[in-house]
Amino acid sequence: MSAALLERYRAVRARTESLAALLSPEDQVVQSMPDASPTKWHRAHTTWFFETFLLKPRPGYRVFREGFEFLFNSYYETVGPRLARPSRGLLTRPSAAEVSGYRAHVDQAMLALLAALPPAAEPLVELGLHHEQQHQELILTDIKHAFACNPLRPALVPADERAGVAAAPPQRWLALPGGIQRVGHGGSGFAFDNETPAHDTLLQGFRIAGRPVSVGEYLEFVGDGGYRRPEHWLSDGWAMVRQEGWEAPSYWERRDGRWLAYTLAGLRELDPAEPVCHVSYYEASAYAAWAGKRLPTEFEWEATARSAGAAGTAIEALRVHPAPLQPGFRQDVWEWTASAYLPYPGFRTAPGAVGEYNGKFMVNQMVLRGRSCATPPGHERLTYRNFFGPAARWQFSGFRLAEDA
Amino acid sequence: MSAALLERYRAVRARTESLAALLSPEDQVVQSMPDASPTKWHRAHTTWFFETFLLKPRPGYRVFREGFEFLFNSYYETVGPRLARPSRGLLTRPSAAEVSGYRAHVDQAMLALLAALPPAAEPLVELGLHHEQQHQELILTDIKHAFACNPLRPALVPADERAGVAAAPPQRWLALPGGIQRVGHGGSGFAFDNETPAHDTLLQGFRIAGRPVSVGEYLEFVGDGGYRRPEHWLSDGWAMVRQEGWEAPSYWERRDGRWLAYTLAGLRELDPAEPVCHVSYYEASAYAAWAGKRLPTEFEWEATARSAGAAGTAIEALRVHPAPLQPGFRQDVWEWTASAYLPYPGFRTAPGAVGEYNGKFMVNQMVLRGRSCATPPGHERLTYRNFFGPAARWQFSGFRLAEDA
Amino acid sequence: MSAALLERYRAVRARTESLAALLSPEDQVVQSMPDASPTKWHRAHTTWFFETFLLKPRPGYRVFREGFEFLFNSYYETVGPRLARPSRGLLTRPSAAEVSGYRAHVDQAMLALLAALPPAAEPLVELGLHHEQQHQELILTDIKHAFACNPLRPALVPADERAGVAAAPPQRWLALPGGIQRVGHGGSGFAFDNETPAHDTLLQGFRIAGRPVSVGEYLEFVGDGGYRRPEHWLSDGWAMVRQEGWEAPSYWERRDGRWLAYTLAGLRELDPAEPVCHVSYYEASAYAAWAGKRLPTEFEWEATARSAGAAGTAIEALRVHPAPLQPGFRQDVWEWTASAYLPYPGFRTAPGAVGEYNGKFMVNQMVLRGRSCATPPGHERLTYRNFFGPAARWQFSGFRLAEDA
Amino acid sequence: MSAALLERYRAVRARTESLAALLSPEDQVVQSMPDASPTKWHRAHTTWFFETFLLKPRPGYRVFREGFEFLFNSYYETVGPRLARPSRGLLTRPSAAEVSGYRAHVDQAMLALLAALPPAAEPLVELGLHHEQQHQELILTDIKHAFACNPLRPALVPADERAGVAAAPPQRWLALPGGIQRVGHGGSGFAFDNETPAHDTLLQGFRIAGRPVSVGEYLEFVGDGGYRRPEHWLSDGWAMVRQEGWEAPSYWERRDGRWLAYTLAGLRELDPAEPVCHVSYYEASAYAAWAGKRLPTEFEWEATARSAGAAGTAIEALRVHPAPLQPGFRQDVWEWTASAYLPYPGFRTAPGAVGEYNGKFMVNQMVLRGRSCATPPGHERLTYRNFFGPAARWQFSGFRLAEDA
Repeated sequence: MSAALLERYRAVRARTESLAALLSPEDQVVQSMPDASPTKWHRAHTTWFFETFLLKPRPGYRVFREGFEFLFNSYYETVGPRLARPSRGLLTRPSAAEVSGYRAHVDQAMLALLAALPPAAEPLVELGLHHEQQHQELILTDIKHAFACNPLRPALVPADERAGVAAAPPQRWLALPGGIQRVGHGGSGFAFDNETPAHDTLLQGFRIAGRPVSVGEYLEFVGDGGYRRPEHWLSDGWAMVRQEGWEAPSYWERRDGRWLAYTLAGLRELDPAEPVCHVSYYEASAYAAWAGKRLPTEFEWEATARSAGAAGTAIEALRVHPAPLQPGFRQDVWEWTASAYLPYPGFRTAPGAVGEYNGKFMVNQMVLRGRSCATPPGHERLTYRNFFGPAARWQFSGFRLAEDA
Repeated sequence: MSAALLERYRAVRARTESLAALLSPEDQVVQSMPDASPTKWHRAHTTWFFETFLLKPRPGYRVFREGFEFLFNSYYETVGPRLARPSRGLLTRPSAAEVSGYRAHVDQAMLALLAALPPAAEPLVELGLHHEQQHQELILTDIKHAFACNPLRPALVPADERAGVAAAPPQRWLALPGGIQRVGHGGSGFAFDNETPAHDTLLQGFRIAGRPVSVGEYLEFVGDGGYRRPEHWLSDGWAMVRQEGWEAPSYWERRDGRWLAYTLAGLRELDPAEPVCHVSYYEASAYAAWAGKRLPTEFEWEATARSAGAAGTAIEALRVHPAPLQPGFRQDVWEWTASAYLPYPGFRTAPGAVGEYNGKFMVNQMVLRGRSCATPPGHERLTYRNFFGPAARWQFSGFRLAEDA
Repeated sequence: MSAALLERYRAVRARTESLAALLSPEDQVVQSMPDASPTKWHRAHTTWFFETFLLKPRPGYRVFREGFEFLFNSYYETVGPRLARPSRGLLTRPSAAEVSGYRAHVDQAMLALLAALPPAAEPLVELGLHHEQQHQELILTDIKHAFACNPLRPALVPADERAGVAAAPPQRWLALPGGIQRVGHGGSGFAFDNETPAHDTLLQGFRIAGRPVSVGEYLEFVGDGGYRRPEHWLSDGWAMVRQEGWEAPSYWERRDGRWLAYTLAGLRELDPAEPVCHVSYYEASAYAAWAGKRLPTEFEWEATARSAGAAGTAIEALRVHPAPLQPGFRQDVWEWTASAYLPYPGFRTAPGAVGEYNGKFMVNQMVLRGRSCATPPGHERLTYRNFFGPAARWQFSGFRLAEDA
Repeated sequence: MSAALLERYRAVRARTESLAALLSPEDQVVQSMPDASPTKWHRAHTTWFFETFLLKPRPGYRVFREGFEFLFNSYYETVGPRLARPSRGLLTRPSAAEVSGYRAHVDQAMLALLAALPPAAEPLVELGLHHEQQHQELILTDIKHAFACNPLRPALVPADERAGVAAAPPQRWLALPGGIQRVGHGGSGFAFDNETPAHDTLLQGFRIAGRPVSVGEYLEFVGDGGYRRPEHWLSDGWAMVRQEGWEAPSYWERRDGRWLAYTLAGLRELDPAEPVCHVSYYEASAYAAWAGKRLPTEFEWEATARSAGAAGTAIEALRVHPAPLQPGFRQDVWEWTASAYLPYPGFRTAPGAVGEYNGKFMVNQMVLRGRSCATPPGHERLTYRNFFGPAARWQFSGFRLAEDA
């Protein structure tokens, strides 16, 4: 057994609870749309993962409560039936306190298990921890969506004291030559299966923006009638603009002629120096067309990030909103790429239920690369493939531009 | 000022809180369908009623919190904009505790006001209290719907010790002669505007069942293919059976070949001696057709109730489920009638916002008469007109049969 | 056998074909909404009625084509399965010409049958003819809806030469005393089952408008913000206004700041002297509230019509649009009443499939009285109860006002 | 001017009319789902393309009829407003005969124009002809969908005399080595913009099936519970199976325990030797997972086809159903690939309205390669990229398997 793994287990599990501690039991029960989940459900589901895949197969383990496997299975068909996703917000019971009890019960059994864990089981524990970190990010994005539906626009954390409005650093374009590039995860550390196998890909020469598009730049698009002119938009994107009445990124609202942005620290003025975020792939694509550019592919992004040495330190403190743009490749928003979410050459799903982790979602989604302000420490990775449908806007999603060389 | 009114104010307001006390803050936040509302919302909306119609017009009154008028207005167009009804379940904030504070704030102001209330304002206070009693019934029916969506089927109260299964009293038919009858509310006590004016109506001779249809009787209809044979059903009712997959009253579920019923005391065996409830108008109508009878009109019901002296005592203790049928006209379920919910001859809405109370709902609904196990003490009335759409099933709604003389 | 019945059979059947002759085979195939049916389907369904209820029970009758009973059954559950209503517009085959063949085949057999019809079967033939006349009216209203969906706004008939714009006759109010009135059909001629039994009803004294509301009068309501002010509307009506974006009666369209009306003779200026039509019950109700009046009940309407001697001659020539208002009670629009469509006291459905004719629709609809420009000659009747849902607007539906005495 | 182009114009235009000649005017008006269009609309829209892009810009051209540009624009936002797609089936007028007149009018002007066409305009004419050929295929697939909705299951053409049931040729796997491959269209002939630019791609070694999956093979999947076992399916695919109740490919229907297939020659027995068709991407993907294989990428397909010399002669006679599988790479079904429909590196849309031809659809769709029985002669191309959403089933779509080397 690895003491480091045990320590990581404690740290990751504790971080989930520290996020939840910002929320009342009432906050934790609500589900504001089918794509989002209640905080309480996130806390229980990540626990269910360890219970189901690590503890239940061990003789002598006693489940915390019958019925939880039905309530807290997310999408594992192989494991059994489950609560319909849009009904997660109806679970007033078990209470948040009972879920705390569930977490404690499983943690106790897990710590005992970890103390004598066969090395062959370590990857599953690792998977469980990275899985929980993904849900930590969702706790923030999901509660942001719920709070934004509340006409009172409550704040999760106090507003910080931003010193005036700084300017974003000037855009600097990087040129990369064409040729065969090695992409994907091939090293020894943890990666999700969808990042493997590492393989060669052929890139053509390209230029890529040194930083994501800023709020200030995006405002020009909005002001230029970007949401009223179909010629920039993908056909499905334009249909969404009309159907949903989109006029700006999500969480922007116009009051008295000015755009404000709702953040988890409350409603406030736009900061032109921030990366634009809460945009869909459709909006990223339309902006790029308007600007005469395109989005980078995921491999252009990865090759650039690798050459820029961008996989460094992570965000340590709680951040509920992207920081203003800084010099450097890595910023605080997930970045939409021009790549559809598809399996890499040679990709194979794992046998059994954990094989459902990623593979079955490889259609109808686009890849995002990078990380966001909500990504937990230690969860960032140069080869990381995040993915959402092209209309999704509730993540901290922005984008950068590229063009052919 | 009437001391009795002040006392009633205290009692009614306290009863709401005693119902809410059965529920956790988490229970109070959830909305399981657009027709239902969260407990917390009921508590705040009934408070908003007093604040808006009694307190705000008085000089010097300070509102508890800006924004509440938007959150807690139900449907009064004249008062201003309001939260969309299906979004009531997204209000994690204000918390249940803050709503308690809101109630205390308004109660304090109301008690001061009541101490010197001009007689002209008394009817408005009365209206507010009857309004709150209506919401007390909804608190129970709405939370029952929410709990029933929870796969754990939680119980609000402990299961009572029913002594075996008694038989319903035998059905006894009453014959009433035709002629002109006075119906509607004409006395001096409180009544909703939809019960007025009292007026003459012409009845033909009829026979009416002495008690509602029992669970045991309804089971025969189910067993006879009642939900599979279109010939008994109204066309819209049959469409609903097919669309919704109805096979039995709401809250019945078949497990291992037996029908169980979910109640607020948990899931349990059917009791054939109870009145059938949680049926829609469509089901009541289909049963009546199957039985070769019809439903009584609301005036047949009222005339019978008046002649039976049925407006007596009310339910005092908390009852979350209809009691088994007893001798006597009055039982524990609302009863669908054959009458559409329409204005009485000479009906006039009150001027101003309170005029929206009943009149604007007089289309697309059917009248129910009687009371249910969830009707608060003092809220029952012989001329009371309850009304719901013909597909509604989440109320404690049953029915009795009638036929032409 | 009655020679008159045979002659009526010929005449009614021929009138259907003369209406269809105005339409191309392509016109006859289209279904522009689920509530409407293709002309070809109307032609076949009315034929299916005679085939199913009169011919098939006779030994030796050979059906025209297997499968038609599935295609052309409208809603008779007892007769067997049927094509889903919204799919009627997908039947490119059988062609209009084949349907003509079907009609000829059935007519030949019917004429043979009528030559020796047992008197007991005469009511069924009568029912079939009145049924066909109902569909004649629907042929016009359904094709009007379809044509209005066509951006070219095609005309069914040439525009007539209206001599300028006349004024509607001034409104004259009639006062009727209260008392017991006999209503419903009790005579010897034909009536639908829903008009029976004749029975006594108790009316209170009332005043009723001498003619329906005119286009000119309705324009004042529109101009006064009628469609923007919720206080006049039933709650469900206001929801419809918002959901559907209603701003005026159906078929009105604003071009260059003026209201035009689409008619089956093409798009033209509004004529203020016409009765307003293509309004829903919701609009009729809102107008009445705005005007400080109400709609008459169906019995107030019937009592007035009876006292006014209003059941006289019918429209003989084809009329595709209501004539300008004339002196006299009877005009060219169906009139919404304040009465829900419910069974009369003592109403019984006929045994067997024809019992499905009216009874099963007695919920969620409002009664209209009178007749319209599209009502066939001989089909009008003082006790006639037409009925549609409160949101329906594609019939020639107007209304008149009433008030308490 | 090229005499060959003029001849091609005549031939392509004539072929559309020969397809339409199989259909009655009534057949030509109907639209059975939003994704399909009426034959008459296809005939007019392809004509509108020539009128809009070739004729209208020439001085002196007189449009056939005002309003047609609104009716027959498909999706060109730049050209102006247009009829909503789901309303195409409401156009009973103009009649099929008027559309013939429209075609003749445009043909006359086009032939005059072609006689003196500046070479610079030739590509636009070519585009118009290939566009029309695409719609020829849609005429067949769209009318098949409409006819299949008709309970009579009409046949477009007589059933052919198939001599018993032959066996499909045995599956033979081809192995291709990895390496850089040139893909896309780089030659001088016509290609759509989405096939360009030609570019290098890097393939890994793979094996690919010599022919598509047969009906016989697919039946094994169905028989093995393929539509009842979620483990083979993409998550979105499984949701579709449940929502739509899929149990087999589209147009299969089970009667008396046997599977039949509806074809444009009527309903008939399954032929196990045919390629399976009318399957969605989801079904192709599920079958591949069940078989332990995968789908080929579009470049694997193209490289194989190029090496197999598969771009030869086309189908000349009208074929309304795929022929039984033959030896050889090219068969009668479009083949789903594992590739999302995205722009090639260096892809640029053309300026102006024709730039909307392909580019704006490059999201949410998968690439199909090959051709089908309905593909017109001369329209097949080795680099051709067909594309549909992953749930589409109304095209003649099958698939073949592949695996890693």
